[in-house]
Order: sequence, then structure tokens, then C-alpha cells
Amino acid sequence: MAGRFITLEGGEGVGKSTQAKALAAALRSRGIDVVQTREPGGSEGAEAIRRLLLEGGADRWNARAEALLFAAARADHVARTIRPAVEAGQWVVCDRFLDSSIAYQGGADGLGDKAIRDLHAIGSENFLPDRTLLLDMPVDDASFRQAAAGIGQSDRFEKREGAFHDRVKASFLEIAGAEPGRIRVISAEGTPEDVTARLMDALSDLLP
Amino acid sequence: MAGRFITLEGGEGVGKSTQAKALAAALRSRGIDVVQTREPGGSEGAEAIRRLLLEGGADRWNARAEALLFAAARADHVARTIRPAVEAGQWVVCDRFLDSSIAYQGGADGLGDKAIRDLHAIGSENFLPDRTLLLDMPVDDASFRQAAAGIGQSDRFEKREGAFHDRVKASFLEIAGAEPGRIRVISAEGTPEDVTARLMDALSDLLP
Repeated sequence: MAGRFITLEGGEGVGKSTQAKALAAALRSRGIDVVQTREPGGSEGAEAIRRLLLEGGADRWNARAEALLFAAARADHVARTIRPAVEAGQWVVCDRFLDSSIAYQGGADGLGDKAIRDLHAIGSENFLPDRTLLLDMPVDDASFRQAAAGIGQSDRFEKREGAFHDRVKASFLEIAGAEPGRIRVISAEGTPEDVTARLMDALSDLLP
Repeated sequence: MAGRFITLEGGEGVGKSTQAKALAAALRSRGIDVVQTREPGGSEGAEAIRRLLLEGGADRWNARAEALLFAAARADHVARTIRPAVEAGQWVVCDRFLDSSIAYQGGADGLGDKAIRDLHAIGSENFLPDRTLLLDMPVDDASFRQAAAGIGQSDRFEKREGAFHDRVKASFLEIAGAEPGRIRVISAEGTPEDVTARLMDALSDLLP
């Protein structure tokens, strides 16, 4: 039996990486074989592209080159890691995927979501998650959480200004509104355990 | 006055880099300010992507990821090098550009030319050369010329088998047939000086 492909999405500082780990653990405790991964990266080629994307100044790449690099990394990640795992019956939990590109390069940077979806069709034959869990909280709380975590090595995206992050959040909610079957909006407020329980609830119809 | 953007295209071993240099020199002798460049590469970001594209085994990237990486490098090259030079009134002579992607990834690798043209529209707002000079010779002669040049550091593309290079040549001629205004097929046989003279002839209507 084929596995499932689950993605976690949301802006900076909403707790995606913590929740990806907790969700993978919760699924494993149900006896599910889970591959945990994240974008950009997740395969040898995609990790090399990740270094190009996250290093350097905020203006190292323009929005168009950046969107193509994300799509290239995703094409490699899907072909070499995600699709083989799902076909082998594993569940893949991925921190960020296509919807991040739609929200960041398509929405906040203004390329439009059609361009980003076209890149995904060409790069990854439009391979989509079975379920996408969008972690949501007010931007101010997310900024506070990031500061509290004392992130010293902020990357090219975390360096952007507040208005950019407002646009990202608005784009994510718009995407979720357009695909209610695939995408579920989950409140990221409360304890990490509360949030993980909400994520598992939002997968209940897919669980064996 | 805006400058001109001229590209040289063709398969492996037809003498593109020699002719790019000779053509740039011939144009300069007419008093034209020339920027000579080549793909993949030609800007700082594109050179970093070039290293990812040319290093490693023949199967390092699948055709889809490869097409996206070429388009990303091209987007950076156009935005940071080619378009600024042309807008400043210079002539840009570029060894390989979009038509190589159409011939290699679109034609020989089977992604189709629409996908490659879509990537160029998204990445580079469909920025096209004023004239493209396609150097053509029989594949066997080109292979001989490459061997004679004693190329020790053959890259991922030069390593491919003969049938692949036959498909590349056929794709190039098909592209040229569809755009006779922009693309001129130039015989690459004879002395280098003969070939350069043919290239200059094919630009005569653009020369000041």
C-alpha cells in the first residue's frame, strides 16, 4: 500500500520544525514508518541548492532566480526522496513544500501563484501532498518566539522586514482558503503538546 | 541607443568558444563595445549554479531539475549581466543561451520545448537574442574535433553517448527552422577565419 505525504507550512517562528519532529514521533507511536524531511533540501542535490539559497545577502538572488532554484531543489527532493518513500509505503512528513513557494515567491514577492504552480508542474509533475497542515499565529507572536529562541544565524528569509512576513501570512491563508480539502489551518498557539494533538486530529481520516 | 544581444549555439565540438572570441574581436575592430560571456554562468550567482550543473556523474540531476537549474542560472545572467549591458548600449556575445536548453533538455531529453519556453518566460521575462548564430557540422566531425582538442576534463554533457548528440543536432535544426528571422544556420566547416566571416555576414543588417 502506498504511504502518505504530509507537509507542514507556515511563516517564520510558528514552530514548524518542532512540530515536524513531534508529529513524526506521534505517527511512529502508531506503528507508522515515517521519513522526516524538510525544504529546501532533503536529498543530496537539493541540499547543495539549499546552500545557494540560504547563504549570502538578502539581494543575492532576484525573486525569479530564487523561485527557479526552489523548484529545482524540490524536483530533486521529490524524485530522489519523497516519491520513492511514499511508493514504498512510508509516510513522509516534510517541513515546508510547494505552498511555501506560493506564499513567499508567488505572493509576498509578487510572481503570482500561476508561475509557481507552472514550475511545480514542470519540475515535479505536479506531485502534491495528501494533506498540508498550515500552522498559524499572529506575526508578532511568531517574531517574539524567534527572538526568544536566540537565533544567531538568521538566513536570507528571516532577515526580511515585518511587512514581508505579513504578506507571507496573508498568502498562506489565501492558499488554504482555495484548497480546503488538502490544506487545514491549525492554531500554533498553546503548548507544543496541544499543537501536536491538533495536527494528529487533522490527519485522523488518513490514519490506518 | 540600446546595444544588441547575439548568441552562438550548436552541439559539442563545433567551435563555439573559439568563434565567440573571434566574433567579439571582429565586432570590436568595428568600434563596437562588446561584452563576451557564456552559459551556464556569466554572473556571480550563475557561476555558482554552473558548478552544480557541470560537476558530478551523468545522473547527478534528472532532466527536470537540470532544466530548472539552467533557467535559474539564465535568470541571474540576464538580470545581472546581459540586460544591463544591452541597455547601456553594449553588444553582448554569448556562447549558448535559451536554444541550448530547448535542444538539450527540451528536445534530446524529451521535456518538450513548451516547458523550456515557459521556464524562460518565468525566469527571464522571455528576454530573447536579437540574432542567434547556429554553428552546424556533421556530428562525427564535431566528435573528431573534440578528440583532437584533447579535452581531459569532459563535463557531464560531453560524457553522453553519440545518439544523444544526434538528437541535440536535430533539435537545433528544428528550432532554427521555426524562427528563421532570429536564428541563422552557419556552416562550421573550413578554417576558423572562414567561419568568423560567415558569422559577420549574418550580422550585417544589425551592424552600425
